[in-house]
Amino acid sequence: MDSKELRVNGERLKITLEKMAEIGTTPAGGVHRLALSDEDKQARDLFVKWLREIDLRVTVDEMGNIFGWRPGKDNDLPPVMSGSHIDSQPKGGRFDGILGVMGALEAFRTIRENQVETQRPLVIVDWTNEEGSRFPPAMVGSGVWAGKMDKDFAYSRTDFHGKKFGEELERIGYKGTQPAKKWPLHAYWELHIEQGPILEKMGKKIGVPEGIVGIGWYDVQVDGKANQVGPTPMKGRNDALCAAAEMILKVEEMPGKMGGNMVATVGEIHNFPNSRNIIPGQVKFTVDVRSWDDQMVAMAREELRNDFERVAEKRGCSMRFQEIWKVEHAPFDQSLMKKILEIAGQMGYASHSLVSGAGHDASYMSKVAPTAMIFVPSIGGRSHVEVENTGWEDCEAGANVLLHCILQSAL
Amino acid sequence: MDSKELRVNGERLKITLEKMAEIGTTPAGGVHRLALSDEDKQARDLFVKWLREIDLRVTVDEMGNIFGWRPGKDNDLPPVMSGSHIDSQPKGGRFDGILGVMGALEAFRTIRENQVETQRPLVIVDWTNEEGSRFPPAMVGSGVWAGKMDKDFAYSRTDFHGKKFGEELERIGYKGTQPAKKWPLHAYWELHIEQGPILEKMGKKIGVPEGIVGIGWYDVQVDGKANQVGPTPMKGRNDALCAAAEMILKVEEMPGKMGGNMVATVGEIHNFPNSRNIIPGQVKFTVDVRSWDDQMVAMAREELRNDFERVAEKRGCSMRFQEIWKVEHAPFDQSLMKKILEIAGQMGYASHSLVSGAGHDASYMSKVAPTAMIFVPSIGGRSHVEVENTGWEDCEAGANVLLHCILQSAL
Repeated sequence: MDSKELRVNGERLKITLEKMAEIGTTPAGGVHRLALSDEDKQARDLFVKWLREIDLRVTVDEMGNIFGWRPGKDNDLPPVMSGSHIDSQPKGGRFDGILGVMGALEAFRTIRENQVETQRPLVIVDWTNEEGSRFPPAMVGSGVWAGKMDKDFAYSRTDFHGKKFGEELERIGYKGTQPAKKWPLHAYWELHIEQGPILEKMGKKIGVPEGIVGIGWYDVQVDGKANQVGPTPMKGRNDALCAAAEMILKVEEMPGKMGGNMVATVGEIHNFPNSRNIIPGQVKFTVDVRSWDDQMVAMAREELRNDFERVAEKRGCSMRFQEIWKVEHAPFDQSLMKKILEIAGQMGYASHSLVSGAGHDASYMSKVAPTAMIFVPSIGGRSHVEVENTGWEDCEAGANVLLHCILQSAL
Repeated sequence: MDSKELRVNGERLKITLEKMAEIGTTPAGGVHRLALSDEDKQARDLFVKWLREIDLRVTVDEMGNIFGWRPGKDNDLPPVMSGSHIDSQPKGGRFDGILGVMGALEAFRTIRENQVETQRPLVIVDWTNEEGSRFPPAMVGSGVWAGKMDKDFAYSRTDFHGKKFGEELERIGYKGTQPAKKWPLHAYWELHIEQGPILEKMGKKIGVPEGIVGIGWYDVQVDGKANQVGPTPMKGRNDALCAAAEMILKVEEMPGKMGGNMVATVGEIHNFPNSRNIIPGQVKFTVDVRSWDDQMVAMAREELRNDFERVAEKRGCSMRFQEIWKVEHAPFDQSLMKKILEIAGQMGYASHSLVSGAGHDASYMSKVAPTAMIFVPSIGGRSHVEVENTGWEDCEAGANVLLHCILQSAL
């Protein structure tokens, strides 16, 4: 059989994804599988078992990144790599991340059962803590591996309960010994759901992102003065939540001011002491700013910091603004993108070029190797939520395109 | 010794308050003793032990209200009652509530050691769940006893972890058998910290509130649409937190619009899923509105409901507005207030009339019996916070005034 005729087993991919969705499953049909949690460990164990079943050599690096190796005819050549992440958002969906890992696994299974030999070695990867919701920032496993983030910084990150990344990595048994350090790669391919509404709206099966937007993450803390609500007149209050409310609206206005395709969001807020008859004395919240234009992100950061300072000053509060993560926009490799469009066309899948507003491990990988991503539609554009969904046929289509991208770059 | 010369033992009162402050003590010097928690139980046990040490007969009603009885010469006469509450705010202070209970205890101790006989029986009381921070609404123990709140409603209240008031009351062993139902009282006196800045600013030792403001508590829920922040354009978002931010600012503006001494506060907010890269899909927050003018509270409620509906509609969100508690303003008994001013004057304590912006059990008690309160200064006007403080001399002064209020109405 000509390897061009190869197709993945869509039914097997579906069963594999359903099996994974059982780990950390939520009543509303989503997945709660935070990085380095018991659920993450359980999913990793299953993944490693599946890798060994198809004779891949498994290595784990000191960031907990899991690699499955398949030898090529010439193992001195830089390998072709594909994968994504197993961790999820809190009460997230069944496709984000895991599709890219299971899609690559299905491609590797297909290659093996058809006894296809490639020139280059192949590597499948699960990157640790892509989401960053438990241990901010995001994309930490690929970030350290790519040399864009410091390992000790990553180890020291703490979750909301004060648990450290490094200790939790050790606890679940995935603190490997192999250095988390880039090596030469011929290409990196990542299959992922779009997490936006465009492909579905346009009736396209395959999306080819031209790259990933630049992202800035900021932590903001506002300190006012807590007091009993009743006897404290409105005048002279230093209400940290009212200050934060003004700041949240400033964040929402920022993209309109800056223009372009910027988005800016406050996703997380913590109010203290959070009692209905106490004037809020402290509020912590997060800001997420994204744009293809890195300069715009930097400008928005400065404008917001100034806006926040003015609001805080007016209200007699103090304000702390901290940039905790910055990732520059990541254009993908032109020839790899072209290959995806070609392969999709040959298979009869309608495709479309777009820009990824979501961050992905491919962002850091693009700094190390020629990189591209394959998107499949998100139903209703919903993602990071329990109702996140993608049709099984689209999952299969994405895995088929991925299979041939891997093969063509490795043959 | 003429009973007019009687004075409480300030040192003993201090030691008693310090002993109580050890139960639920926080590192920053406050107290965390939520209603029906293990700490509440521990403090109740100690209180009951102290009551028995001075030969009071202890009864507990089905709301967990604790009464300590001292017979009079004529036990057919309606008794004189005094007390307050033992529970605290989350990370609250060492004086709010407990001063009124320990102050009454000190008065009872003084009466006993001086072998003073009163015509009327005396009753000391600890009202269950005055704060309402764990089980909203507030003043539940006195509310049910006064016939202003339904017992089954109180039992069914749940805390943030889903635990029921009735079950927790039983768990800590304070679900008594005596009906929580008012009986005739000759007078009700409550000593309390001011929880505001006025007495300290004016250099007065004793405050005499003319009554307590009316209070409205509202629960608000805003439902938007959660989604990944990156790929979801600003246009078409239904961000529940941005909607809530606008609503919070509407609450802050309301007192300025309504005039008078209204205060309006959002003290508590919960954001879901509360992840930095997910557009908030749901926000729940509380509103507290207070005014001496009950009509104003009702008007503010309607205006806020309308404002919130407009904000929600504009943003494609849905909004639920629920009144969970309403207490009308409570003017205190003129002759009792006069007596406090007289006694304070006789003792050489500078006093001042004011209005209580904080709710107290005395609010419901004023519907049952002639009622008045004695306030002592709050340092810096701070309350419901760990730094809440009142000078020991002021505590002693308040207890002395309370002692003679009790004696004069019971002799």
